[in-house]
Amino acid sequence: MMATVQSQQHFFEGAEKLSEWVKLLRVVRCEIISVTSNKDMDAYVLSESSMFVTKDRFILKTCGTTTLLSAVDYLLDLVKKKVGFDKVVDIFFSRKNFSRPELQHCVHQNFENEVSFCYSILSDGSAYTLGRINGDCWYLYTLEDEGVTHPDQTFELLMWDMCPDKMRIFTQEECKSGEEASQKSGIADIIPGIKIDDFLFDPCGYSMNGLLPGGYYITIHVTPEPHCSYVSFESNVPQESYHELIDKVLDVFRPGKFLMTIFANKASIARDTYKTLENQHTMKGYRRRDHQFCCFKNYTLTYTHYTKLSEGTQYSRPII
Amino acid sequence: MMATVQSQQHFFEGAEKLSEWVKLLRVVRCEIISVTSNKDMDAYVLSESSMFVTKDRFILKTCGTTTLLSAVDYLLDLVKKKVGFDKVVDIFFSRKNFSRPELQHCVHQNFENEVSFCYSILSDGSAYTLGRINGDCWYLYTLEDEGVTHPDQTFELLMWDMCPDKMRIFTQEECKSGEEASQKSGIADIIPGIKIDDFLFDPCGYSMNGLLPGGYYITIHVTPEPHCSYVSFESNVPQESYHELIDKVLDVFRPGKFLMTIFANKASIARDTYKTLENQHTMKGYRRRDHQFCCFKNYTLTYTHYTKLSEGTQYSRPII
Repeated sequence: MMATVQSQQHFFEGAEKLSEWVKLLRVVRCEIISVTSNKDMDAYVLSESSMFVTKDRFILKTCGTTTLLSAVDYLLDLVKKKVGFDKVVDIFFSRKNFSRPELQHCVHQNFENEVSFCYSILSDGSAYTLGRINGDCWYLYTLEDEGVTHPDQTFELLMWDMCPDKMRIFTQEECKSGEEASQKSGIADIIPGIKIDDFLFDPCGYSMNGLLPGGYYITIHVTPEPHCSYVSFESNVPQESYHELIDKVLDVFRPGKFLMTIFANKASIARDTYKTLENQHTMKGYRRRDHQFCCFKNYTLTYTHYTKLSEGTQYSRPII
Repeated sequence: MMATVQSQQHFFEGAEKLSEWVKLLRVVRCEIISVTSNKDMDAYVLSESSMFVTKDRFILKTCGTTTLLSAVDYLLDLVKKKVGFDKVVDIFFSRKNFSRPELQHCVHQNFENEVSFCYSILSDGSAYTLGRINGDCWYLYTLEDEGVTHPDQTFELLMWDMCPDKMRIFTQEECKSGEEASQKSGIADIIPGIKIDDFLFDPCGYSMNGLLPGGYYITIHVTPEPHCSYVSFESNVPQESYHELIDKVLDVFRPGKFLMTIFANKASIARDTYKTLENQHTMKGYRRRDHQFCCFKNYTLTYTHYTKLSEGTQYSRPII
């Protein structure tokens, strides 16, 4: 979830901010494990989740059976009453379809419930499904008001059916620390010069936030268990083309399948990147299964789904 | 629904074809009202529906509480056993979301049911939702095998919240025949030289098929009742840009809202038409609410949703 707020006078930073975030995260069922900061951003590693806070933006990325949407009401109340913001500029909530929705808490068991819940709080907003509703798909709830005018972009790679050899790195059997896992996997080399805050869970699982000057971040979360392996990569680093970054991330993880989303506003240098992807039917041993493009009020969104060539090339040809 | 089939030796035309179509349509709860033909195509006006048959393609367009999908099994059986086709080249099933899904017969009450039903028969295929799932949206089930190699395109305009003055033309109070309604409304002038087969229902409602040489058709269906006014326009006429056609159709009907879909394969001159629409934020007094683009195996699809400027321009700006 990402929310941008606006006010003439205020900032997210404030005297009691940490204790407020702890309370908010308790609602979501997350705990703060570690914090790093630079002058543009506070980056929190949570229990298999991440949170980023700038002066006007809040990003919360969770997984497992957290109750992300319960943060919305709390967040709006917090920024209004305690910090004095007066307007939501935009809000985005997105997720991949779950493999086991029945394991989720009530409102998160299906997207229709989540949409109703968001609408009941925000009284506005649009809900979309990208990809195949009878296969892999990705859900988005978005509310855009005026939009930010400075360049803004978010790149996300969601990967699953992961290479078991790569996943072993993210267990205590193979590595003793987050730092060792970051080095051994190649994560540390994805974006040179990034300030990394990484954590290796026991017995397995990995989370990292990376900060760059200018308010740029990357965040990676790894669920290495073979029966439900999953990795997410997200960054707001601006790129005219994301091909090099995609290559690097794919090399680190070698997923069986991945989906990619790119949000870019009009001022972003990434705004035309979807054009470079349009004819990209194959990519580094992967074949495209879906490619979609959406124009929203201030942002464009590119959605693309690829599967490994060796696993995903057989198109069944039914004989009637 | 559109299905294309393939065989070295056979054609849809056959000795008992009319009686076979009557039987198929009975399953769907439709009746044949009128037939026109040229050397490329047979065009049937049905009870508020249309059917088009060429040597290798079958198009059935229905509305109301017909049971369209019950035709699939019957059609596949028919073309295999009685006509000797051996392969489905592609099949497309699409519809707008219903205003009153509870009035539909079982399988058609929601798209998930329809998808399961299609998959149970075809053992393959992908399902998508274009547009807002908490607003106006459009569903598509598609199965593409090799695809046709000749140029192919389908343009569709679905319109609702219609201008009451325009809708009055399609009642027996205002017109005495389909021909009179076609003339008075301007439908007859949309595509010059087209061979029109039109029908005005009692007390109201209108259907038309129009044929052009080369296997091209247009078809229009009008539901004029104010509480559920709805018009569909569909054509496979190839255009590099559909702007002129859109203008003409909008002038005839003046809907409050419309959505447009354009399918085009690689060989079609319409294949780049989505590019001309990308920056079309307004169009003849309408403002765009959604614009999406999808690449399928052989076809691209453009989906666009517009609302009348006077009715659809207020974006609510929630104050938190």
